[in-house]
Amino acid sequence: MARQGILVVLSGPSGTGKGTICKELLQNYPNLHYSVSATTRSPRPGEINGVNYWFVSEADFKSMAANDELLEWAEVYGRFYGTPIKYVKEQLQSGLDVILEIDIQGAMQVKDKFPQGVFVFIVPPSINELETRIHKRGTETQDLIDLRLSCVYQELSFIYNYQYVVVNDEVPEAVRKIAAIVEAEKCLVARNKEIVHEIAGRQISPKEADL
Amino acid sequence: MARQGILVVLSGPSGTGKGTICKELLQNYPNLHYSVSATTRSPRPGEINGVNYWFVSEADFKSMAANDELLEWAEVYGRFYGTPIKYVKEQLQSGLDVILEIDIQGAMQVKDKFPQGVFVFIVPPSINELETRIHKRGTETQDLIDLRLSCVYQELSFIYNYQYVVVNDEVPEAVRKIAAIVEAEKCLVARNKEIVHEIAGRQISPKEADL
Repeated sequence: MARQGILVVLSGPSGTGKGTICKELLQNYPNLHYSVSATTRSPRPGEINGVNYWFVSEADFKSMAANDELLEWAEVYGRFYGTPIKYVKEQLQSGLDVILEIDIQGAMQVKDKFPQGVFVFIVPPSINELETRIHKRGTETQDLIDLRLSCVYQELSFIYNYQYVVVNDEVPEAVRKIAAIVEAEKCLVARNKEIVHEIAGRQISPKEADL
Repeated sequence: MARQGILVVLSGPSGTGKGTICKELLQNYPNLHYSVSATTRSPRPGEINGVNYWFVSEADFKSMAANDELLEWAEVYGRFYGTPIKYVKEQLQSGLDVILEIDIQGAMQVKDKFPQGVFVFIVPPSINELETRIHKRGTETQDLIDLRLSCVYQELSFIYNYQYVVVNDEVPEAVRKIAAIVEAEKCLVARNKEIVHEIAGRQISPKEADL
């Protein structure tokens, strides 16, 4: 019997490199699969339905949202983007682990609909360093930098809605930690309720510690 | 600032190879340290106080037990054995992870006194296989084998008092999983309450998801 997969939600303040971490994870851990989003925007040349996106009409998207068929969704410049719960569940049921890389707002929607997911908050080593990095790039005005940093402070306060925190200091180290988190979660007794039955060959009921 | 270490309690039914797993872990993960037990038995030639055991008098041992200075203890053939909480806490405070390999009864005592520990239940792949192994060895009568197996069934029911379960099918695989559990536990937000402060350079209060 295939063990149920795990939904891993990678999230955190913007600009902390979670996209890079996600890409590395997918390349190095073949059991991890990326969730394909649904969108109302038109396919670009070469984009394949079900691979890059599920391309749907706005009416269909809105009906999916209304029927609780999306783990999360958002509107960006008049286009809708969302994560269909159906495909995620199919992958999990076939024993694959699914990774979602998503902003905090989306992650909180997912947590609401799928609390058994594993919620990982990616953070920069320090806000000072983040500021230094942005300054070095020299592409933004001080006003914009200040606005962005004040957003990061606000976003950081959401850490308490996540189970795990991973500091993105060195990408390979962060990737290794997330892989360890997935491995550990698969060992949780709460996720292995059938294991005692399998080992014993018969049902054994929980017993409180009364020694 | 040194991050506080983690107390890992390896436990499970007898005869599932947790001693071998513990030895391999200590050899391969230098941050993991074995907890030194206290005992009332006399030191054997070559045994060093504080290395092999803390050798104490029976009066001292009983006073430690009475004063809640032992994480767990047991009497075996008139000798007392126990885990002094003081040395475990010192190691944890200096950032070292401490491993305790212990029977279920002892683990339940530790859980009572130190619930922030990480409790890992080691199980055999199947009781049938365990029986086959014992039969092959041919050193025990059928009555003894039956008694032992009925104990294992009873011990298995304690799994629900543990957070993690690791099947000891292949030792290196089990060792790798326990190392991943330790790594993941270090990433728990609940164990990193100071991290937001460190990143932000100032205090940020928890905020409920109200998006």
